Amino acid sequence: MAPTMQQAQTTFTIPTRGLGLHEFTAHVARWVAASGIETGLLTLFCRHTSASLLVNENAAPAVQRDLLRWLDRAAPESAGYEHDDEGPDDMPAHIRTMLTGVSLAVPVADGRLALGTWQGLYLAEHRRAPHRRQVVAHLLGE
Amino acid sequence: MAPTMQQAQTTFTIPTRGLGLHEFTAHVARWVAASGIETGLLTLFCRHTSASLLVNENAAPAVQRDLLRWLDRAAPESAGYEHDDEGPDDMPAHIRTMLTGVSLAVPVADGRLALGTWQGLYLAEHRRAPHRRQVVAHLLGE
Amino acid sequence: MAPTMQQAQTTFTIPTRGLGLHEFTAHVARWVAASGIETGLLTLFCRHTSASLLVNENAAPAVQRDLLRWLDRAAPESAGYEHDDEGPDDMPAHIRTMLTGVSLAVPVADGRLALGTWQGLYLAEHRRAPHRRQVVAHLLGE
Repeated sequence: MAPTMQQAQTTFTIPTRGLGLHEFTAHVARWVAASGIETGLLTLFCRHTSASLLVNENAAPAVQRDLLRWLDRAAPESAGYEHDDEGPDDMPAHIRTMLTGVSLAVPVADGRLALGTWQGLYLAEHRRAPHRRQVVAHLLGE
Repeated sequence: MAPTMQQAQTTFTIPTRGLGLHEFTAHVARWVAASGIETGLLTLFCRHTSASLLVNENAAPAVQRDLLRWLDRAAPESAGYEHDDEGPDDMPAHIRTMLTGVSLAVPVADGRLALGTWQGLYLAEHRRAPHRRQVVAHLLGE
Repeated sequence: MAPTMQQAQTTFTIPTRGLGLHEFTAHVARWVAASGIETGLLTLFCRHTSASLLVNENAAPAVQRDLLRWLDRAAPESAGYEHDDEGPDDMPAHIRTMLTGVSLAVPVADGRLALGTWQGLYLAEHRRAPHRRQVVAHLLGE
């Protein structure tokens, strides 16, 4: 008999230390492995407007610093924003979230995330202060 | 007996008044509620190359104006584009669509979109003229 | 009896000739048609950190050249990056990948991708040298 399509859902809470990229690939990989799903689709969703999700290079830390510098130059703190009630880092955080996005999908093959060799899953914190960020994960497959 | 995985699909038509962000969270939320699906995944897809989808802050209207100003500065109308047959606002619209994206996924939990407190779903119209934009919604779950 | 939800998965290998947009809509459309799935969801995932996925205009080639010029100006080769071990085009490639993204979802309706009239699926190669890029496709539906 063919296996039946099933789904699972959880929320990862990711504590951040302020501005920066926080890799959480291992957390997601463990949850996918524990589900027993062999073939399927993982979707991640970040429940914030000043933090976002990235897939990027997980080998050289300098890559991550350059990505952050680029975002800082593209949407700097002092750019005459109309919205600044919540501090100078708030509007840049919304812009950086818009550019990098809050949802992400990764297929699952042979019971594992089908990430490339150098790909890692990152939460990007765009505010200066530490936060506890929530990422909802949905997994579907058989 | 376990509920069976099911899916639903519809197309939302969103009339725009030209350049701007148009929130359509309530339309999607009503459709998800009517489906009866408790746990699942919603995917949205914008069928255009000069309009896109955003999740961003739904409280302060100044945030939305700052996001639009940023996109206007990043991909301005007068930037010596090769492609300008369809008017000066056409190529900037394609660039802004590339940066913000046309597909988006949001998990469904307890019969509702798992959006964060301040998150809203927006269609971004990048052309000056009003348009009728189509967003295809796919919902899967049980 | 209602049809049963099913899924399919494959990997497209896309040879690139260096910097540029490579349309692969027809390959995906054929695979979707062959699956027999009438209603569902296609997800694409690019397994690289210096190549990405785009949906954009498939009619005027000048649009694609303008998109590439914009990315080149936004993340140029000579911008004082900390990371440059792999050549001057490596860090710009990571930034352009971050901006355009590696995952993409398109609903399937009436057995076909629900793309708009002018939309095509593109792999964006952000390195100067030719590469063989892998895009994993996941299809779900009935």
